[in-house]
Amino acid sequence: MKRFSADYLRQFGTDFFVACGSPRDEAAQVADHLAESNLMGYDSHGIVRITDYVICVKDGRVRPGAPMTILKETPSTAIVDCGLNFGQVSANLMIEIAYEKAKTCGISSVVSQSCFHIGRLGSHVQKIAERGMFALMTCNGRQRIHMVVPWGGRDGRLGTNPIAFAAPTKGWPVVMDFSTCMIPEGKIRLSLFEGKPIPENCIQDPEGNSTTDAARFYTPDRNKIIGTILPLGAPRFGHKGYGLALMTEIMGAILSGEDATVDHNRSNGVSLMVINPDAFCGIDLFTELVDRFCQYQMSSRPAKGFSEVVVPGTLDFRTREKRLVEGILFQDSVWAEIVDAAAQVGLKVSEP
Amino acid sequence: MKRFSADYLRQFGTDFFVACGSPRDEAAQVADHLAESNLMGYDSHGIVRITDYVICVKDGRVRPGAPMTILKETPSTAIVDCGLNFGQVSANLMIEIAYEKAKTCGISSVVSQSCFHIGRLGSHVQKIAERGMFALMTCNGRQRIHMVVPWGGRDGRLGTNPIAFAAPTKGWPVVMDFSTCMIPEGKIRLSLFEGKPIPENCIQDPEGNSTTDAARFYTPDRNKIIGTILPLGAPRFGHKGYGLALMTEIMGAILSGEDATVDHNRSNGVSLMVINPDAFCGIDLFTELVDRFCQYQMSSRPAKGFSEVVVPGTLDFRTREKRLVEGILFQDSVWAEIVDAAAQVGLKVSEP
Repeated sequence: MKRFSADYLRQFGTDFFVACGSPRDEAAQVADHLAESNLMGYDSHGIVRITDYVICVKDGRVRPGAPMTILKETPSTAIVDCGLNFGQVSANLMIEIAYEKAKTCGISSVVSQSCFHIGRLGSHVQKIAERGMFALMTCNGRQRIHMVVPWGGRDGRLGTNPIAFAAPTKGWPVVMDFSTCMIPEGKIRLSLFEGKPIPENCIQDPEGNSTTDAARFYTPDRNKIIGTILPLGAPRFGHKGYGLALMTEIMGAILSGEDATVDHNRSNGVSLMVINPDAFCGIDLFTELVDRFCQYQMSSRPAKGFSEVVVPGTLDFRTREKRLVEGILFQDSVWAEIVDAAAQVGLKVSEP
Repeated sequence: MKRFSADYLRQFGTDFFVACGSPRDEAAQVADHLAESNLMGYDSHGIVRITDYVICVKDGRVRPGAPMTILKETPSTAIVDCGLNFGQVSANLMIEIAYEKAKTCGISSVVSQSCFHIGRLGSHVQKIAERGMFALMTCNGRQRIHMVVPWGGRDGRLGTNPIAFAAPTKGWPVVMDFSTCMIPEGKIRLSLFEGKPIPENCIQDPEGNSTTDAARFYTPDRNKIIGTILPLGAPRFGHKGYGLALMTEIMGAILSGEDATVDHNRSNGVSLMVINPDAFCGIDLFTELVDRFCQYQMSSRPAKGFSEVVVPGTLDFRTREKRLVEGILFQDSVWAEIVDAAAQVGLKVSEP
């Protein structure tokens, strides 16, 4: 195992994205997002992502440093053409625009066009909560990776379509970030490699039968996905996850004018809504009431099998405090892949 | 069984609410909402509700004809004091305000204070979609009936907290309306009376153990609820339903300045957000893309056990077409309760 500090990962990541062609300030934004994901415990969305990103840099799916422009706007709304720049850079721009508009108008909505992978939604809404506002964000995926079925369906027609929101409190903000399907593809692949069964009611085989066998999700050579993922709420309430997934498509991609039924190079259709509590009950009362409501949740005695009741985000912030002290661990094989990705853009990694 | 047309129920309902003290136009609004719920197949939210409402009229929890005022507003936001008038009347006012604001600003948000039971959320967002805009609505419940646990909890701290959205298409709008918990209390009570088991992972006994025995949800005399309901996504992803329920509390009650941790006479903290597609890609392209996306969903072959894939709302609109022709059926015992409720406000029911 290798162990690195977040600062080291931030520095390394910045150098990597500069080597990819990003201006230094934009490179630092992407690197910070990835290092923060590692700190919060979301290693799958952390610095390991550069192994994917390097491929996208090469094939032109992402365009480091590309200009981003506002295609259309009103005092409270905007469509941002992200120009296929790194999604984290685009998200930061969307955050700035939405925050300023909400400051003036009380509520704002900003949607994206031509947006590359924006990473972990939770980190974006968190930034707005830390500035005293409420944020709601949704995101769709490209048509080529539609593997979630509409409720009652056999063919993939939706992505994992995450939804996130965040609200300020006097302590850590409430931060919720979740996919609207039962299981991410990464976990199915892991089960395949480990030979373990998938939990029931999460995936279907190519014939539309529910299965726990990860092998039925892929072709025998394991290279192609032929199964499907069920929406959140399966087996009885899958229509709820399906509805939420549809909502992310409508609020994200469709509102910006992107057709989500055809494949294109855009990775994410993003919708960001920001609410300024000062237009409503005022930030002081709002924060106090959110705080009180969280305390009220935590005052519930734990159910069997649980040691405490927390609010969304708490466990992640605890992980962050721990990892700030202890550093972030990487398996040697994973770190080797990261070093290899860096080498592909001419960056030699010097360990601390 | 009794069979009535929706027109008859509308007329009867209007007379009932006039007898309760509502002005005739407001009485017609509530009656129309209830009759439409019957038409759409949601009989539990239909005209039978007057048996609850008559009690609330008597104990002052609802104040027919009460004035409603805007407490605070900006061009795109408003807090409406609903004065405990009937919730359907309040919702119609919120819809008008939010629609007009979205027409000017592109996006709007209206939240309620002192709002009585607003009924079926789906019917409210549908009205906005029928006028060419996208609507998102959330709603919390009063503290006294908190029976949904926070994820990992043993004590009720949340209501069934529904979320609804609607979007225009060239045909029936997409209308989604769902609770963020596993099962409504009404279905648990039905299982108790029928002696049938509850599906697994829906409820907990008073000790916080998952159970399928409805009897463990109530005191032995069946009068008091002592069990709890699990959030949507249980048993593995209950944190998702918990997060959605928290979101409805924050967007609804808390934003308006209402403390959701104490009991008060207000039934529902409502949040309504409206998006005007013309501020984004334009209503024509928006409707076309929503339509195309719906067709794309429906193009999925059905999974095992399903005969077709539909989009949210379709089945309800089909029920409506059927019931417009065939009328709406009531069990004799249910109709007798309705007649009795009417008698309590001095209304004699004459059958058609």
